[in-house]
Amino acid sequence: MANSKYEYVKDFEVNDNILPHTWIVIRIDGRAFTKFSQAHQFQKPNDLQALLLMNASAVAVVEDLADVVFAYGVSDEYSFVLRKTSTLYQRRASKLISVICSLFASSYVMNWGKYFPETKLQYAPAFDGRAVCYPSESILRDYLSWRQVDCHINNQYNTCFWNLVGSGKSTAESQNMLKGTTADVKNNLLFDTFKINYNDLPQIFRKGSIVYRKKVEKVVKVEDGQEIKRLRSCAVVEHEDIIRDNFWTQYPYILGGK
Amino acid sequence: MANSKYEYVKDFEVNDNILPHTWIVIRIDGRAFTKFSQAHQFQKPNDLQALLLMNASAVAVVEDLADVVFAYGVSDEYSFVLRKTSTLYQRRASKLISVICSLFASSYVMNWGKYFPETKLQYAPAFDGRAVCYPSESILRDYLSWRQVDCHINNQYNTCFWNLVGSGKSTAESQNMLKGTTADVKNNLLFDTFKINYNDLPQIFRKGSIVYRKKVEKVVKVEDGQEIKRLRSCAVVEHEDIIRDNFWTQYPYILGGK
Amino acid sequence: MANSKYEYVKDFEVNDNILPHTWIVIRIDGRAFTKFSQAHQFQKPNDLQALLLMNASAVAVVEDLADVVFAYGVSDEYSFVLRKTSTLYQRRASKLISVICSLFASSYVMNWGKYFPETKLQYAPAFDGRAVCYPSESILRDYLSWRQVDCHINNQYNTCFWNLVGSGKSTAESQNMLKGTTADVKNNLLFDTFKINYNDLPQIFRKGSIVYRKKVEKVVKVEDGQEIKRLRSCAVVEHEDIIRDNFWTQYPYILGGK
Amino acid sequence: MANSKYEYVKDFEVNDNILPHTWIVIRIDGRAFTKFSQAHQFQKPNDLQALLLMNASAVAVVEDLADVVFAYGVSDEYSFVLRKTSTLYQRRASKLISVICSLFASSYVMNWGKYFPETKLQYAPAFDGRAVCYPSESILRDYLSWRQVDCHINNQYNTCFWNLVGSGKSTAESQNMLKGTTADVKNNLLFDTFKINYNDLPQIFRKGSIVYRKKVEKVVKVEDGQEIKRLRSCAVVEHEDIIRDNFWTQYPYILGGK
Repeated sequence: MANSKYEYVKDFEVNDNILPHTWIVIRIDGRAFTKFSQAHQFQKPNDLQALLLMNASAVAVVEDLADVVFAYGVSDEYSFVLRKTSTLYQRRASKLISVICSLFASSYVMNWGKYFPETKLQYAPAFDGRAVCYPSESILRDYLSWRQVDCHINNQYNTCFWNLVGSGKSTAESQNMLKGTTADVKNNLLFDTFKINYNDLPQIFRKGSIVYRKKVEKVVKVEDGQEIKRLRSCAVVEHEDIIRDNFWTQYPYILGGK
Repeated sequence: MANSKYEYVKDFEVNDNILPHTWIVIRIDGRAFTKFSQAHQFQKPNDLQALLLMNASAVAVVEDLADVVFAYGVSDEYSFVLRKTSTLYQRRASKLISVICSLFASSYVMNWGKYFPETKLQYAPAFDGRAVCYPSESILRDYLSWRQVDCHINNQYNTCFWNLVGSGKSTAESQNMLKGTTADVKNNLLFDTFKINYNDLPQIFRKGSIVYRKKVEKVVKVEDGQEIKRLRSCAVVEHEDIIRDNFWTQYPYILGGK
Repeated sequence: MANSKYEYVKDFEVNDNILPHTWIVIRIDGRAFTKFSQAHQFQKPNDLQALLLMNASAVAVVEDLADVVFAYGVSDEYSFVLRKTSTLYQRRASKLISVICSLFASSYVMNWGKYFPETKLQYAPAFDGRAVCYPSESILRDYLSWRQVDCHINNQYNTCFWNLVGSGKSTAESQNMLKGTTADVKNNLLFDTFKINYNDLPQIFRKGSIVYRKKVEKVVKVEDGQEIKRLRSCAVVEHEDIIRDNFWTQYPYILGGK
Repeated sequence: MANSKYEYVKDFEVNDNILPHTWIVIRIDGRAFTKFSQAHQFQKPNDLQALLLMNASAVAVVEDLADVVFAYGVSDEYSFVLRKTSTLYQRRASKLISVICSLFASSYVMNWGKYFPETKLQYAPAFDGRAVCYPSESILRDYLSWRQVDCHINNQYNTCFWNLVGSGKSTAESQNMLKGTTADVKNNLLFDTFKINYNDLPQIFRKGSIVYRKKVEKVVKVEDGQEIKRLRSCAVVEHEDIIRDNFWTQYPYILGGK
């Protein structure tokens, strides 16, 4: 039985190749993670274990896909940057989105027990994704800055909000108190009322997480009781400022390399 | 710190909404599953446990997403059909693809131990996906027929091939013997040489698997030692012929319903 | 000098093929025709010569492109319907739009003198175009109904408006008088104040224009002083109601033909 | 009669906005111009009047659309470059293509009589168009180089071919003689057989035509019998090399300006 009679249905497939020579960003978001975080009793405003699990899943993606040169994560979202000249999956948006989302999701489930040894995974998590492309390094940098500024704004607000709620205010009262307040007012509220110096909060909460490849010393074998170390390129997780130039000047190969 | 300075980067996002009033098919494929099936020693030509795991993951998708009215699976691929009038995620291709792929992948990992209790999952599986839309029920039916014919052709070839290999032939010899042979020749080879009547092979291998919603009797409670049953709609897995009209005539609500 | 060094730039071209087996509509609109109609002193609310020129240009498009099975025009806009199975220019949206728009524009200029023998064409007119596709005949019919209803609504309003202005009212006064009025009120205003029975206005103003192919008797030669006539298929212009079924029942080949 | 019942058909329209911050090129081509040039007896290999008419039409486009900063024409094709930051028609591909194609076509017809005073325009010409975008100035320059190299290759071949045909060879013989020949061989053929020094041919044939805005002295009024001149920006046509850097270094504002 030949299949030629039905093969015309392939003509309905569409090309979704992304413009060549542009930076591709695949951004993924936890689907309905408000409910997911409640079902698994994530701490508010930030659950460190949940963030570390997100980071471990992102590392799995970066280690698997050589063309992903950088990733930035905050809360239940992660952005993966593919190098400008990548031809992975012929730059087809649907392939890139689906492989990254599904690899992230299956890594998330596989790593769950490591970060939540006491908590049973209640149901299968999902992540939605999208592809965006940026024609220049400068606009790509603006994209990453946009996400890191968002991280800061949300974290500052949420830190105030959950401390107010923790101090006995209702959610409505807490929202009202914060409505329209400037960053300064929020910082003062944290310091005066809750004795929290915002800048002393962990970097991972204030800056989010970055993943990129870096040459680090690794023990490659042990000989006569001595560790033999070698420089090896591997994916690392850090919590640096990526808005200013410093980071990018220090690691020019991340965006500059072939 | 307002974020408005960077928000222009959102202008680079593109719309990928799928044409309204058309049938949407999201087809997903295991990424590099030749390697994955070897790493986990899947049986050839068909590994029943691996197929059941695929089906369980597909059921998870159908149960989660009400707009998925039908699914068809064969080997490491699955096609999910969304009803014509669906507005799920505003019919955005990237959202539909990513949510279905990631939900499928995380369900696959969560269910792994149930179907492979003795085999450790070696690494995170991924699935690539694509969206296609069909303007009429008739063309959608042709799409599904295309996949089921493909299932049959591949299964017949693979059954011959792996039996030849199992009988001591090299892969090259086996390929040569099958090259250009008709269905009849393959059936005779199976019967004469290996005493296999092709039509006696399990339906799941020859027809693939379908998933759809059906009213089935379910025990809803036990009263005075008696089971109380009610008709409940739930996702079932079957292995029917979906090329001829019979199945569709029997369940007109699958494609015909709102 | 080979050109291969630069040919990579072709990789930036994108596919814009329209989904197969759907009805394609190319709708074109006069660019800045408010200014154009003033520059050429078109009569208000309707300039018959300008409409006849639009129709002549549409006929040129229909006669040139066999796959255009129907066209509907109103004011400075025209919609061209391509049959569902058309593969003209591989259904590439940019090709279809550009060829139809430019053919319409050059026909418009070529025919100008015939309809405006006393008026010099002041500058080159332009038309913008778009492509939309519809998955079923029923939705295509709704599209055409949408345009014809629009024709009626605009014509009724404009007939009132320009009669008020002609009677000495300012444009602001006239707009105010019509604001929020129902069709009945407008019809009564026309009848009571201006002695105009709306239904007596020419069909071309109230219904717009349709173009389609029809077998009509044509004189093919003259023999011994006698005209020999034959049925010939040619593009005709009419002003029928295309919202109700009558027209489509009478000419089933228009949308039904191969 | 409200139109809301049918307005849902607008949901089938698609966005075709071109990626921001990229160079947009709209390239148009004469539709079936082999036939058109025969019908109007254009000279071979190049008809100067036909090229001047193409240029006049391109000037009309450049003068009308401020965002078109450069245009390059050869034979019956023209490429229009929109500045990187253009938001004309919200960068919608269909609008840009259709307006440029139709404006070009209607200008072509309006200007016909000026360049072909003795030849009647036989039928309405059409142009097909496409939109391509380039993420950097360097790639845009490669695009323009690609077209100018093509101009040279085609012109050299056609000059040989039509001289051979003019000398009495059949078209098949002429094609055979030129098959696979290098540029040198073609130049020698022209010189030895036809006494033509290729580099002495008019620039417009060898380089094509460029259109851009330039400040030129224009007579703005005559006072007391004296012409008063002022620098005015207007579209000029030239035939420069645009592959090397010279031209672009001399006019940095063309691609560099806002």
